[in-house]
Amino acid sequence: MNKSPAEDFALTCPASENGDDRIQMAHGGGGRTMERLLDTIIRPGFDNPQLNERHDGAILGLSGPLAFTTDSYVVQPLFFPGGDIGTLAVNGTVNDLAMCGARPSDLSVGLILEEGLPLETLRRVVDSMRRAADAAGVRLVTGDTKVVDHGKADGLYINTAGVGPLASGHVIGPASVQPGDTIILSGDIGRHGVAVMAAREGFGFETVIESDCAPVAASVLGLIETGIVVHCLRDLTRGGLASAVVEIAETAGVSINLDEAAIPVRDDVRAACEILGLDPLHVANEGRFIAIVGDGDADSALDALRHHSVSADAVVIGRVDGGQPGEVTSRGPLGVDRVIDMLSGEQLPRIC
Amino acid sequence: MNKSPAEDFALTCPASENGDDRIQMAHGGGGRTMERLLDTIIRPGFDNPQLNERHDGAILGLSGPLAFTTDSYVVQPLFFPGGDIGTLAVNGTVNDLAMCGARPSDLSVGLILEEGLPLETLRRVVDSMRRAADAAGVRLVTGDTKVVDHGKADGLYINTAGVGPLASGHVIGPASVQPGDTIILSGDIGRHGVAVMAAREGFGFETVIESDCAPVAASVLGLIETGIVVHCLRDLTRGGLASAVVEIAETAGVSINLDEAAIPVRDDVRAACEILGLDPLHVANEGRFIAIVGDGDADSALDALRHHSVSADAVVIGRVDGGQPGEVTSRGPLGVDRVIDMLSGEQLPRIC
Repeated sequence: MNKSPAEDFALTCPASENGDDRIQMAHGGGGRTMERLLDTIIRPGFDNPQLNERHDGAILGLSGPLAFTTDSYVVQPLFFPGGDIGTLAVNGTVNDLAMCGARPSDLSVGLILEEGLPLETLRRVVDSMRRAADAAGVRLVTGDTKVVDHGKADGLYINTAGVGPLASGHVIGPASVQPGDTIILSGDIGRHGVAVMAAREGFGFETVIESDCAPVAASVLGLIETGIVVHCLRDLTRGGLASAVVEIAETAGVSINLDEAAIPVRDDVRAACEILGLDPLHVANEGRFIAIVGDGDADSALDALRHHSVSADAVVIGRVDGGQPGEVTSRGPLGVDRVIDMLSGEQLPRIC
Repeated sequence: MNKSPAEDFALTCPASENGDDRIQMAHGGGGRTMERLLDTIIRPGFDNPQLNERHDGAILGLSGPLAFTTDSYVVQPLFFPGGDIGTLAVNGTVNDLAMCGARPSDLSVGLILEEGLPLETLRRVVDSMRRAADAAGVRLVTGDTKVVDHGKADGLYINTAGVGPLASGHVIGPASVQPGDTIILSGDIGRHGVAVMAAREGFGFETVIESDCAPVAASVLGLIETGIVVHCLRDLTRGGLASAVVEIAETAGVSINLDEAAIPVRDDVRAACEILGLDPLHVANEGRFIAIVGDGDADSALDALRHHSVSADAVVIGRVDGGQPGEVTSRGPLGVDRVIDMLSGEQLPRIC
C-alpha cells in the first residue's frame, strides 16, 4: 500500500477479474475481487492515507463539541448539468454541517452499487467526490462498499456522514429564532431542481440551467467569524425555501413574512418552472441557504455573505414575527399576502 | 414536539395520507407526508431528544481523539433468525468502532426506503434499531430518509455511521502486529452466514441456527481496561475469519499460522456448511472478532474476554510469525498445513 494512490488512479486498471468492466456481485463480497475494486478505484480515488490503513474506521484528532450529520443520495439521473451524485453527496453533507455552525472536517462514504454498473461510472463519481472534498476542504476518511443484484438499485446510491467542530459558541437552530429577526437568502433559488428535472425528462430549454450545487461552509463560517450572533441557518434542499421556512416557523413557534418580490429567481428558471408547473419556492437547491439574524445585524451579515461568491447575491427576504405560530405568509408583487405551506408530497422526487 | 415520543409510537397512527399503509414516493419528498412519517415512526421509534430538534445535524459533546466509521446494510432477507437488518445496522457499526479501540457513542442513520414497503416493516426495523442501540449503549442522534421508486431497492437499505472516543492510547491496528503475537478468537464462527442463507433459501435444517449478531464493544473495552496492550482487533464479517486474517497478514507484512482444530464451529453449523458447500472460515459473522496480543498477555486476555457472555468461549487459535509476508496457513486435524486465502468473490452475497 506504499504506491502512490494518484498513480494507481491514473492507471485505471480494470477492477474485475475477467475483463468485464462492470460491477459484479463479487465486488461486494469481501474477497479478492472487492479488494481489487478498493485498491484500483476507491482508495486511490479518495486519495487519503487513512483509507489505506485498511482498518475498520478512521481516527480523528478533533475535539468537541462537534456536529454530526448524515444524508443518503439517490438522485436520478446520476449526472446533471452543474454536478452529479458524487458532488451532491459531498456538498450536501458539508452544507448540513455548516448549517449547524460547524467547520466541516471529515466525511464517511457508504456506496451501494448495482450489479452491472459500468466501472467507468463509478470512477467518474469517485473522482467528483474527491474534487468536491478538495474544494470544500474536507477529507473522505472512511468508507464501505456494498453491491446489490441488478435491478435492486438505480446505478448507485451514496451515503455520506460528516463531523466537524462547532465554530460558534451560540446555539444555531430554530430555538434561537425570535420575533423581529431578519431572514437573509444567500442567492437565487430553483436551479438544482430544474436542472435535475430537465436532465431526467430530457427537456431542452433554450439555455442549459445548471444546478447551484456548491459548498457553502466558507461563506457561513465567514459570517460566524464576524462575531454576528447567527440565530438559525438552513439549507434549502428537499421542499425548497418554503419547507425550510415553514419548518423553522413551526419549530420556533413564530410567524414569518416573506417579501416575494425580493426572492431572486433567474428568468430562465422562472420560465422553466412555469412550463413544468412548479413553484420556485418549493424547488430544491443544493448551494443555497437562509441565515436568520437579529434585525440590527442584517446589514453586517449581508456584507459578510457578499464577500463569498457562493453568496454574492445575498438579500433580505423577510422577517420573523410574533403572529400565529408556524404561519408563513408571502407578500406578492401586487401587495397581496398568500399563505405558504409545505407541499403534501413532492413535486420532484429523487432530487438529491 | 413536546408530546411524548413513546406515546406517539404506541398509537402507530398511519403515516400516510390516504390510509395506504405502505411507503409512497411522497414519504421522501420533504413535505407534510414525510414530516408525518418522521413524526409517527422515525423520531418516536428512535426516541432521542436530539432528533426532535428537527435540525440538520446533532451536536455531540465528545472530545477527541475519536474513531469514525460507516457501513451500509443490504442484507436479504430483512428478517432472519437471531436478528434483522436493523439489529445488524446498529451492531455492525458499534462493532467497527470497538475494533478501533473506541467506546461507541453516537450513530447516524440513513434510510433508503422502496416505494411500496409496508409501514409495519419499517416500524419493526426502527424498533429493532432502538433496542439494539439501547443494548449497546449508543444513541441514534441524527438521520435521513430517502424513498426510491418501486423496484429500485429491496425493501430498505440502511446506512449507519458512528463515532466514539478512543479508549486506548495505543495504536490498535495491523501496523502494531508483530511476529510472536497470539491470535484469540472470541467464540464459534459461521452462525450469521448460515442463518441468513437458510432464511433466504428456505432451507429447513433440523435445528434453527440463529445469527450471532451482537454488540461486542463491552467485551473489547473490558479487555482494553485491563491494561493489556491490544495490537489488533478485527470483526469477522464479510469474508469471515479467513479474509480478516489474510488482510491483517498482508497489511502487517507478517505470516500467520492457525490451528484449525482450535477454531470452534458448532456441529449444526458445520453440518449446514457441508450441505451448502461452504467453508466455515469464509462464512460471515456479526458478533465475533479476533484480538491479537503479545504472547505473554494471551492468558490474561482470555480471562478478560471470558468475563463477557459474547466472548465467553474465547480461545487461542493461532500465532503471528515472521515467515512469508501475507501468508496464512492453517494446520488441520491430521497435522497437515493448508494455505488460507481470501475467496475471489463471495459465496454468500448480501449477508450484511
